[in-house]
Amino acid sequence: MDRNGVTEGEFEERGMNKCAEQVSHLALDIGGSLIKMVYFCGENSGSEHQQGILSSKESCGLSNGNTNCSVLGGKLHFRKFETSKINECLEFMSSKQFHRNGEDCHGASVSEKNIIKATGGGAFKFADLFKEKLGMTLDKVDEMNSLVAGANFLLKAASHEAYTYMDGQKEYVQIDQNDLYPYLLVNIGSGVSMIKVDGDGKFERVSGTSVGGGTFWGLGKLLTKCKSFDELLELSYSGNNRVIDMLVGDIYGGMDYSKIGLSSTAIASSFGKAVSEDKDLEEYKPEDVARSLLRMISNNIGQIAYLNALRFGLKRIFFGGFFIRGHAYTMDTISVAVNFWSNGEAKAMFLRHEGFLGALGAFMSHRKDGFADLMAHHLVEQVPTKPSRNAGGGLNNSSILKDVNENISIECTMQLSN
Amino acid sequence: MDRNGVTEGEFEERGMNKCAEQVSHLALDIGGSLIKMVYFCGENSGSEHQQGILSSKESCGLSNGNTNCSVLGGKLHFRKFETSKINECLEFMSSKQFHRNGEDCHGASVSEKNIIKATGGGAFKFADLFKEKLGMTLDKVDEMNSLVAGANFLLKAASHEAYTYMDGQKEYVQIDQNDLYPYLLVNIGSGVSMIKVDGDGKFERVSGTSVGGGTFWGLGKLLTKCKSFDELLELSYSGNNRVIDMLVGDIYGGMDYSKIGLSSTAIASSFGKAVSEDKDLEEYKPEDVARSLLRMISNNIGQIAYLNALRFGLKRIFFGGFFIRGHAYTMDTISVAVNFWSNGEAKAMFLRHEGFLGALGAFMSHRKDGFADLMAHHLVEQVPTKPSRNAGGGLNNSSILKDVNENISIECTMQLSN
Repeated sequence: MDRNGVTEGEFEERGMNKCAEQVSHLALDIGGSLIKMVYFCGENSGSEHQQGILSSKESCGLSNGNTNCSVLGGKLHFRKFETSKINECLEFMSSKQFHRNGEDCHGASVSEKNIIKATGGGAFKFADLFKEKLGMTLDKVDEMNSLVAGANFLLKAASHEAYTYMDGQKEYVQIDQNDLYPYLLVNIGSGVSMIKVDGDGKFERVSGTSVGGGTFWGLGKLLTKCKSFDELLELSYSGNNRVIDMLVGDIYGGMDYSKIGLSSTAIASSFGKAVSEDKDLEEYKPEDVARSLLRMISNNIGQIAYLNALRFGLKRIFFGGFFIRGHAYTMDTISVAVNFWSNGEAKAMFLRHEGFLGALGAFMSHRKDGFADLMAHHLVEQVPTKPSRNAGGGLNNSSILKDVNENISIECTMQLSN
Repeated sequence: MDRNGVTEGEFEERGMNKCAEQVSHLALDIGGSLIKMVYFCGENSGSEHQQGILSSKESCGLSNGNTNCSVLGGKLHFRKFETSKINECLEFMSSKQFHRNGEDCHGASVSEKNIIKATGGGAFKFADLFKEKLGMTLDKVDEMNSLVAGANFLLKAASHEAYTYMDGQKEYVQIDQNDLYPYLLVNIGSGVSMIKVDGDGKFERVSGTSVGGGTFWGLGKLLTKCKSFDELLELSYSGNNRVIDMLVGDIYGGMDYSKIGLSSTAIASSFGKAVSEDKDLEEYKPEDVARSLLRMISNNIGQIAYLNALRFGLKRIFFGGFFIRGHAYTMDTISVAVNFWSNGEAKAMFLRHEGFLGALGAFMSHRKDGFADLMAHHLVEQVPTKPSRNAGGGLNNSSILKDVNENISIECTMQLSN
């Protein structure tokens, strides 16, 4: 059950029912903790579907002069599974018969259709499993390459994709495509990769840290007994990190250390108050622990990201990866860290499809052998049927969470080269 | 009971018995977790003591042309208390009557003798307490100033102070005093300060992180139920971080991600393995948890330190603060981090009196009103009577711990201006 009272399955099923027969082109990003899936399905259902494809085919070649292709209108859909429950992913794919659907959509051979683009370490680790269970071959796409391709696609093609987040305010950023590069891409998965992006396919992984989403979730699980990442994130909403963090004021008797720009409320030592208090873990509220942990990790990532942006003179830092999940407090902490350390010179930006950069990038790699191009038109938000139970304004508003990732499909046109 | 089977008290008492009547000049660094104390005591005991001072006085003025002073030979001693047990510090000072002893040693007035140099946030926070309990006024010395003055004193005056540590090898570094600056000083207390040092009194705090010693100890206490910092550190000796950390090989099915220079054994996500395993905290060995935590924090500090050294083109990074405690694995992790991120260009160095930089710096500030100069001659190591129970070579050798901080007094000459 997610925070909106709607199960993930319900969301997905609504999407899947619409396009069960029309799914083609699928890509996976199999990370240490999560499997991210992107798939394309034609726009109309039932008999309209075939019509949709045919009429698209008729218009083929108008946009790029290539007459040897078909154009397919439809939507990109997004879905995630836990890597530890990879069987759920396999069952989902098996039940939907992705490869056979793909076969229906354009004239590639069966052997081609049994190949799935996949990135992330799991593309190596689980290759045999996909072959054995589904008879499918994972065509491995480099992880960094995929992240960059996914980010570039979103930043160039999708409007209302990138935004800043400060003091509870979300502000969409219009990206001038001629002024996109260079930028720093910070992908926060289980671990964190920091990539300097200079253009399409032009990039370098300049840094990273092992203190990432896996640390938040792993340590958080041990400390709070939460059963899921979202539960832990939700818990942190109501927490107060000052209960466990040692603040500058705790050391300085309530005073600032103004000479070096540290206010009394700045965190001097994350979890430092646990040192002097004679309290067991059980005596702290799990929500306070979750909040301290989230702040420690978000702040640390923001700081290391800024230091790397500084090295290469990059003014813009885009944060992606499943750690963020449109979580207000996470984004606020990262933004504040970047703003603080850069004296306001660098800016943290976030992406609505933050968790699917790698999967999208792997999907784009179909371009080489499956389709000619993918053009995004606009985002289609699936509004849950039940209202958010945390609706309201400000930092503690979790309603923003419904606004991300899986629930926003992208309406687009796929040009298929036959 | 410390790791050598000798209580801290025993160590200290042995030192104190020698100089109980001769203690003068004391300084404190009152941090968030620990109080660090530096005090000077004349070299000889009993009747020899007075003679020692007199004979020193006779030679006064020879070294710096100032005839209005006396020279006192003796030793600098080092001691620490937990800030949460500040009463132990007050009792210690009261029982030893530091200020009265100081009065005997040179002719300053009683009111002057009731002033103690103190740095760290606690110099503000506990000022009233010292006044009330001991009738002493804390003369507050800026924290960053003190750290830098302490480090500069040690690096210039004490031989065999700085060393590198890699692959279990400790190597002393001879510092060319003409080529000391600039350097990066990383002081790892409860939190971490990073200071670019350009000369005596010339410095800037350029960065820091809240993920420091207080985080290791605080989080470690919550996760392992350890009762002291040293216990937690000792526990980490026998731990294996791979049980809880997610390695690159765990994601890539045992393979490297060689394209971006990550070996299969590199940590992809600290504590990341706890995400997919259905295990409670109690099912992990505390030593494995301690090891993961230590590695996460040491590595993070090493990385942020390097990024800051890079910003300012600093080739040498000195690590101080009580977090390190001459701990082999901690130093090794920091060294490897600096080496890895700098491609071998920057070097991590450690200081034998790592925990007392601030207290030493505060002590040095006596120069302005108490004494003319302090000249260090050499370090005197107090060897514990019982052998280390962990003696042996390699990374798991804890015997190096006996080799640091409190157990090494510095033989020196103090020039007193009367």
